[in-house]
Amino acid sequence: MASTVDHVIEARWVIPVEPAQVVLQHHAVAIAAGRIHEVLPIGEARDRFPGARRTELPAHALIPGLINLHTHAAMTLMRGLADDRALMDWLQNHIWPVETRLVSAEFVHDGTLLACAEMLRGGVTCFNDMYFFPEAAARAALAAGMRATLGIITIEMRSSYASDAGDYLSKGLAAHDSCKHEPLLSFCLAPHAPYTVSDATFERVATYASELDMPVHIHLHETEDEVRESERAHKLRPISRLLNLGLLGPGLIAVHAVHLTPNEVGLLAEHGCHVAHCPSSNLKLASGIAPVATLNERGVNIGLGTDGAASNNRLDVFAEMRLAALLAKGASARATVLPAHAVLGMATINAARALGLDDRIGSLTPGKHADMTAVNLDAPELSPCYDPLSHLVYAAGREHVTHVWVEGKSLVEDRRLTLLDPRDLAAKAAHWQTRIAN
Amino acid sequence: MASTVDHVIEARWVIPVEPAQVVLQHHAVAIAAGRIHEVLPIGEARDRFPGARRTELPAHALIPGLINLHTHAAMTLMRGLADDRALMDWLQNHIWPVETRLVSAEFVHDGTLLACAEMLRGGVTCFNDMYFFPEAAARAALAAGMRATLGIITIEMRSSYASDAGDYLSKGLAAHDSCKHEPLLSFCLAPHAPYTVSDATFERVATYASELDMPVHIHLHETEDEVRESERAHKLRPISRLLNLGLLGPGLIAVHAVHLTPNEVGLLAEHGCHVAHCPSSNLKLASGIAPVATLNERGVNIGLGTDGAASNNRLDVFAEMRLAALLAKGASARATVLPAHAVLGMATINAARALGLDDRIGSLTPGKHADMTAVNLDAPELSPCYDPLSHLVYAAGREHVTHVWVEGKSLVEDRRLTLLDPRDLAAKAAHWQTRIAN
Repeated sequence: MASTVDHVIEARWVIPVEPAQVVLQHHAVAIAAGRIHEVLPIGEARDRFPGARRTELPAHALIPGLINLHTHAAMTLMRGLADDRALMDWLQNHIWPVETRLVSAEFVHDGTLLACAEMLRGGVTCFNDMYFFPEAAARAALAAGMRATLGIITIEMRSSYASDAGDYLSKGLAAHDSCKHEPLLSFCLAPHAPYTVSDATFERVATYASELDMPVHIHLHETEDEVRESERAHKLRPISRLLNLGLLGPGLIAVHAVHLTPNEVGLLAEHGCHVAHCPSSNLKLASGIAPVATLNERGVNIGLGTDGAASNNRLDVFAEMRLAALLAKGASARATVLPAHAVLGMATINAARALGLDDRIGSLTPGKHADMTAVNLDAPELSPCYDPLSHLVYAAGREHVTHVWVEGKSLVEDRRLTLLDPRDLAAKAAHWQTRIAN
Repeated sequence: MASTVDHVIEARWVIPVEPAQVVLQHHAVAIAAGRIHEVLPIGEARDRFPGARRTELPAHALIPGLINLHTHAAMTLMRGLADDRALMDWLQNHIWPVETRLVSAEFVHDGTLLACAEMLRGGVTCFNDMYFFPEAAARAALAAGMRATLGIITIEMRSSYASDAGDYLSKGLAAHDSCKHEPLLSFCLAPHAPYTVSDATFERVATYASELDMPVHIHLHETEDEVRESERAHKLRPISRLLNLGLLGPGLIAVHAVHLTPNEVGLLAEHGCHVAHCPSSNLKLASGIAPVATLNERGVNIGLGTDGAASNNRLDVFAEMRLAALLAKGASARATVLPAHAVLGMATINAARALGLDDRIGSLTPGKHADMTAVNLDAPELSPCYDPLSHLVYAAGREHVTHVWVEGKSLVEDRRLTLLDPRDLAAKAAHWQTRIAN
C-alpha cells in the first residue's frame, strides 16, 4: 500500500504514546488518506515514499493531538468576566444572568469558534463539550476542522435553548441525528449535574445511553455542597444515587470527582468509569483537589479537561498536564506519582478511551486517524533537552505548538490557523464583549 | 524637568501596581535617563514631550518588570535531567553528583546566561540567586542587562567553589566587593538551609547581615524531613533555632515556608520576615503546599520564586503567579483569596520589598527605575478582555511578553533579545548537555 502514502512528516522525536514512554528519534509518520500508515525512521521513509509530500520538523516532538475531555467551549465569551469569587456567587450573580440574557445559537457558535481557535493553537485536536445549542457548537467545530464530542445537555431548568429536561433531550437527539454523517463529530449524553437533574431524567438518560451506545458526561462530586445537597434531598451521595439509577459503567465520564470516599473510588474503578480531571478549575473555584494519585493507582481511567474559560481561564491542555502532574505529587506527598509519560497519556489515549474513540485517535498507531500536534523544543526556555517527554509536561507550553493536523489536514501551520481568521474572531469577541458587559 | 524625558511608552493599559488594583487606560510612561519621570494620559504625553522617542503598544498592558524572588539560575543546565523523583533521590543521585563533577565558574556563567535569556523573554527583570560562584552569575547578569541580587552562599560542605563555610563567606564577600559599583547588582547573605549550616556559621551570617545591611536568603521549613531533622539535632524547629540565633527580622527571606505551625506564622509576621513562595517546586518535589492565604492574612510579605529549573522546570514567573493564585484558593477552600491584583503585587512590589529594593523597583512610580514589561493581550486565547489584571494572572503566559526594559534600556523587543544571541546560548547549552549526560 506504499503508493497511497501522500504525506510524510519527519520529526526530531516521534512520541506515539502507545506504547507508553517510547520516544523515537529521527522518525517519520507516513499518512495515507488522513490515516496513519506507518511510523518509521526518516531515512527509510524517504526511500520508501519518495513521491509523498514531506514536512520537516527538525527540532520538534510529534505527538498525538491533545484531547480536552471536559469543556464548555462557548464560555470563552465570558473569559475573565468574574474571577476570585465563590462558586455560587460566580454562577448565580455573574454567569447565569449573562446566560439567561444572551445565550443563543449565534452566541454558542461564535464562542465555540473562538474556543476552537484557542485550542488548535494549543495543540488540542478534539474536545468534549457540554453547553446549550450543541448544534451550533457542532457547526463551529466543523468550520474549524476540529474533532468534537458534543454533549446532549439535559437540565431541569428552562433556558433560551429548551423548556424542560425532555425538551433538552429531544433537541439534543435531533442535533445528533442531523450530524450523524459527520466523521469528525460524535455525541454523548450530558446530564448537567446531580443537583440539576431528576431521577426520572437520569433514567431516560440511561435508556438513551444504552440504546444509542453513547457515553454519559456529567459533573460529579465537584464540591462538598453538591454531596451534602444530595444527602439531604436523596439520602444518598451522588455516586450511590447514580449507581442505583444504573448509570455507573464504562460509558460514564465523571467530571471533577474531587470529593470521594475510598469506597467511591472503588465504585468508579469497579464499574470501569472514567474521570475528567480539571485541576485548574477545581482550584480556581476552590472546589478542592481530586485524589488523582489514588484513582490512578486503583486503575480508574483519567483524562484531563480545562472546564470552561470562565473558570480557568484558559483552554490549555498543556497547562492542565503540568498542573495535574505537579498537584498529584504535592497533594499525595509523593514526587514519583504521575510521571510525565502518564500525564501525556491522560491528555491523549486515556481521553480517547473515555470518549469511546480510542480505536480512532489518542496515539500514533497505524490505522488511526492522523490527528497530530508538533511542538518545537528549540527555545532558550526549553534548553537543554535531556528528555522530550519531560519537556512536554514540565517545561513547554502551548505556545511551542507549531503544527496541528486533524485527519491529516493541516489546521495550524507555523502557528498560523489555516481555516480561521483571527480578525474575524476578534470582531466576534468584541461584539459579544460589548453585549455581555452592558 | 520635561526636557529630560527621552522616551515615552504608550500602552493600552498601564498597571502601576502601586496603588493596587489601578488600571490606567491609554496611558503612557515617560522615561528620563532610565527613571520613570511620569505616568500620564497618552494625549497629554504627546503634547508635553513631543521630542521624545515614542513606543506604541496599542494592545498591551505595561507593568513593572517581574521579580523572581528565589532561583538557582545556573541550574537551567540541568533542566529536566531527573524528574518524578523524591527529593533526596533527586539531590543525592542526580543533582549533587553533576554539581560535584562539573560546576565551575564557566558552568555558572553559561547556565545563568541561559536563565537570563529565559527570564527576560518571560518578562522578568530581576532575580534573587543562590548558587556557587556568584561572581560568575554576576558577570552573566551584567551581560544580559538584568538586575540581580546575588547570594553569598554559605554551606558546610566542600565543593569545587569553596572548602568550608568560612571560605564560602570570604569568597562571596570578595565577589560583593568587586561588584559594589555595579548599579544593577546587589547582594544578600545566603546560608543554604538549616540542615547544611551550623550555628557558628549562622552567627557569622547574622553579624555580616547586620554590618553590611544585607538581606538573608535561606531555604526554610521546605520539607517535613528538614523540620524533623532539626528537632532531632537541635531540639528545635528551624524557625525557633533562627530566632535564637538572631536571624528572624525584616531582612530575612524565608524560601518555601511550607510546613508552619500557627505559632511560626505568627513569628514570621511579628518579626517582619518575608516569604519566597515557590509553588511549582513545592508541588513537583512533593514538599507540600505553603499556607499562603494564612501568611497573607497575617500580614507576612510574600513574593514568588521559581526555584531552579531542575525542580520546576521553568523560570516562569507568569506560571508561578497563576499557580499561586489557584493553589491558595484550592488549598484554603476559599475562591476569594489571593485575587489577581494581589498576586501581581507578589511578583513585583512585594518581592522588591523583600530585597530591600522597593525604593528603586517594583512599581511604575515616578522616581523609580524604568524596569518594565509589556504584555500583548491581543490573541484568540486572551479574547475577550474584560479585565487586563485578571488576564495577566489567569489567561496570559510569558509568551505574550513582547518588550522588556531595565533602567529604560530595551532588552526584549518584539520578543527578540537585544543583547543575547540565541544561537550562542544554544551552543553553550549543547556543550554542557553533552558533558552532563556523559
